[in-house]
Amino acid sequence: MTESPDGAPAADPMGDPLYREAVVDLLGVIGYGELAAFDRLAEDARLAPTLDDKLAMAAMAAAEFSHLAALEERIRALGSDPAEAMAPFRTALDDFHVHTSPADWYEGLVKAYVGDGLARDFYREIAAQLDHETRDVIVASLADSGHAEFVVDRVRAGIVADPRLGGRLALWGRRLMGEALTQAQRVAADRDSLTLLLAGGVGRPGMDLLAIGQMFTRLTERHADRMTKLGLDA
Amino acid sequence: MTESPDGAPAADPMGDPLYREAVVDLLGVIGYGELAAFDRLAEDARLAPTLDDKLAMAAMAAAEFSHLAALEERIRALGSDPAEAMAPFRTALDDFHVHTSPADWYEGLVKAYVGDGLARDFYREIAAQLDHETRDVIVASLADSGHAEFVVDRVRAGIVADPRLGGRLALWGRRLMGEALTQAQRVAADRDSLTLLLAGGVGRPGMDLLAIGQMFTRLTERHADRMTKLGLDA
Repeated sequence: MTESPDGAPAADPMGDPLYREAVVDLLGVIGYGELAAFDRLAEDARLAPTLDDKLAMAAMAAAEFSHLAALEERIRALGSDPAEAMAPFRTALDDFHVHTSPADWYEGLVKAYVGDGLARDFYREIAAQLDHETRDVIVASLADSGHAEFVVDRVRAGIVADPRLGGRLALWGRRLMGEALTQAQRVAADRDSLTLLLAGGVGRPGMDLLAIGQMFTRLTERHADRMTKLGLDA
Repeated sequence: MTESPDGAPAADPMGDPLYREAVVDLLGVIGYGELAAFDRLAEDARLAPTLDDKLAMAAMAAAEFSHLAALEERIRALGSDPAEAMAPFRTALDDFHVHTSPADWYEGLVKAYVGDGLARDFYREIAAQLDHETRDVIVASLADSGHAEFVVDRVRAGIVADPRLGGRLALWGRRLMGEALTQAQRVAADRDSLTLLLAGGVGRPGMDLLAIGQMFTRLTERHADRMTKLGLDA
């Protein structure tokens, strides 16, 4: 019921300090997520078997970083400091990466594709509930880095060369989903503000429990689609 | 005598296969240098004491990477494969980074500033000997990432807080210079083509020994300037 992309609030929701604070939190978690993704992709690029592969993975890392500037600018425009806005989410996101450190190049590829896709879907769902300006900044920051095809090619070729790889990577994909949900829940429990963004507020419609359930169904379905594209059982 | 930025050769030097091959080598070494710098800056960003510092160092890494695309394009335009062009320089450049792995955040900062500056000066000197088109691609790829001020501020503040740091970082700067010369010499000994670019060829003036000596004097002076800016003895 609040899913329409045109369902923007009538009044300026930034007049509500709770809303503004919640948006800064959201921009902070997305920003730190992109910084952490940059960091890990740059590291995982070292697992690349060839220089071409290393270049492709490094390009994904640089693409993540390139999205950060607009988020930082928006945080500043809302009167907050970017590093301060990101700080509360460091532990949860760093823990996600520590718990999902790839054992080899293929796990790194799957993580780059599945993890990035999941984060993108999730933040887009939240952005759909927000004022136009914030939504546009977030959607632009989540632009596809255009390397999906590279990952799909490499993973599929790897499975052809060694069919046992498919079973291992399917388990890995499920673990990535599980770790992502664990850390997302932890963030939600710590930061009421983000829950508030989903639930709506004065003059601003939100998602009810049914809508939130439907959102999780969509996230799960899209995750399964990505696994299928990689040639893996979800 | 060949230093004039307008001293371009009259005929198209790309007609000479040795010249073309040498230019591909040069683009390859600069390209791999930027990839390796990206890689190390991304890693050294982890030593950052604050999130602001980490963001600044990660931005330097991303800036290095952003220069790669134009070099790869030029290598392809010359009929070669970028990864193949870079491959011969992997060992020397990786060894440079292994031998100059920063022990802490400050060593990382000095390396980012001094190492990057040295490489930039050196490749600019060589580029001045080349055809206009190659020169423009190289000079653009060496554009300053605009983070020098950040490094100078942080290093100077660090020395004020702990004066002993200055002595240690001065030694570190000299070691960086020494390692860079060692690896440059190794590359030059391995790849006649790069020496050929400096020495000139048919229809293309080059540097004589005097000019090469003068070039090294300039490189050393500029290195000393950078150390002074950081508040360090060269």
